Amino acid sequence: MKISVILGHPKRGSFNHAIAGTVVQALKTSGHEVAFHDLYREAFDPVLPDIELPKEAVVPTLIMRHCDEIAAADVIVIVHPNWWGQPPAIVKGWIDRVIRPGVAYTFKEGDSGEGIPVGLLRARSALVFNTSNTEARREQEVFGDPLERIWKDCIFGLCGIKHVYRRTFGVMVMSTERQREAWLDEVRETVGRVFS
Amino acid sequence: MKISVILGHPKRGSFNHAIAGTVVQALKTSGHEVAFHDLYREAFDPVLPDIELPKEAVVPTLIMRHCDEIAAADVIVIVHPNWWGQPPAIVKGWIDRVIRPGVAYTFKEGDSGEGIPVGLLRARSALVFNTSNTEARREQEVFGDPLERIWKDCIFGLCGIKHVYRRTFGVMVMSTERQREAWLDEVRETVGRVFS
Repeated sequence: MKISVILGHPKRGSFNHAIAGTVVQALKTSGHEVAFHDLYREAFDPVLPDIELPKEAVVPTLIMRHCDEIAAADVIVIVHPNWWGQPPAIVKGWIDRVIRPGVAYTFKEGDSGEGIPVGLLRARSALVFNTSNTEARREQEVFGDPLERIWKDCIFGLCGIKHVYRRTFGVMVMSTERQREAWLDEVRETVGRVFS
Repeated sequence: MKISVILGHPKRGSFNHAIAGTVVQALKTSGHEVAFHDLYREAFDPVLPDIELPKEAVVPTLIMRHCDEIAAADVIVIVHPNWWGQPPAIVKGWIDRVIRPGVAYTFKEGDSGEGIPVGLLRARSALVFNTSNTEARREQEVFGDPLERIWKDCIFGLCGIKHVYRRTFGVMVMSTERQREAWLDEVRETVGRVFS
């Protein structure tokens, strides 16, 4: 299978990097084809310019390559910290520029964009791994955990991906080395389960 | 009063620009001091680098100026389109870099970041104007309108701003010139009400 793995965290050696590394290694060991993007390392430009707004826009080669990859993926894996109930800007910009009309979704003929979009992604499942410094119950009760609906409904649901598994690890600043190792074991098991 | 107005939309002449322009003009006419940032026009870099993560980090002069302004604001006004239930990346990065620990929130002594933050912003109210191409009922039912909790709870609530008024205009692609003019009148009235 073809798997796209997207990582957005500024600090090399972060636990987010460890999660992504664990995912990539597990997938490669199982013989899958992995397209891995460490957006910070690649200095991905997250600012969608005016000229990329139209559906028929000619986008830069780099963005086109991202679009082709995501359109071809059987499974999509996203790794990022929870910053303000949202992904870091670099991941948000990957969404803004890569999850494009004509690539990830479209509208029915005669619909000028106000209607119900049709998902175009061929992937049938996605995994989202997040890290957080907010206790899970507080995230739910005080903030409503916006990332849950953002990834499941706003993004992947709209693009036709019905099965989205999301897991948030935390509280990171309180975690021990042993706990983080157990979390990476869990990542490995999750990947094994999804790709078995 | 000192008012910060933050705009994020790639297309000059967009309705978002018209909203922000209306807000700025109304405020200046009333004699308020306005700090206006069209983030696209200013080519704001939304990518938070590793070195800006620590609370005690020395941030670039430009970011420091943004921080000083937002800390001094009596009211904050945000204008952006709803993209995937979130702000465009350029606005998300303004949040990531400017709404910093020590500027907008802090933790109690002995709390290493896992606890309950204390809001530091002096502003007591904020206005958020959004535009959308999704019908309001569908936004609520299918997507859960994540921007509502993002701005009210995740961001402004955490930073100590209790009164947040949010209004989404749409469906933009279906709107007539007359409707858009009525919406700008509403923006003017809202500003007048909040700052009276």
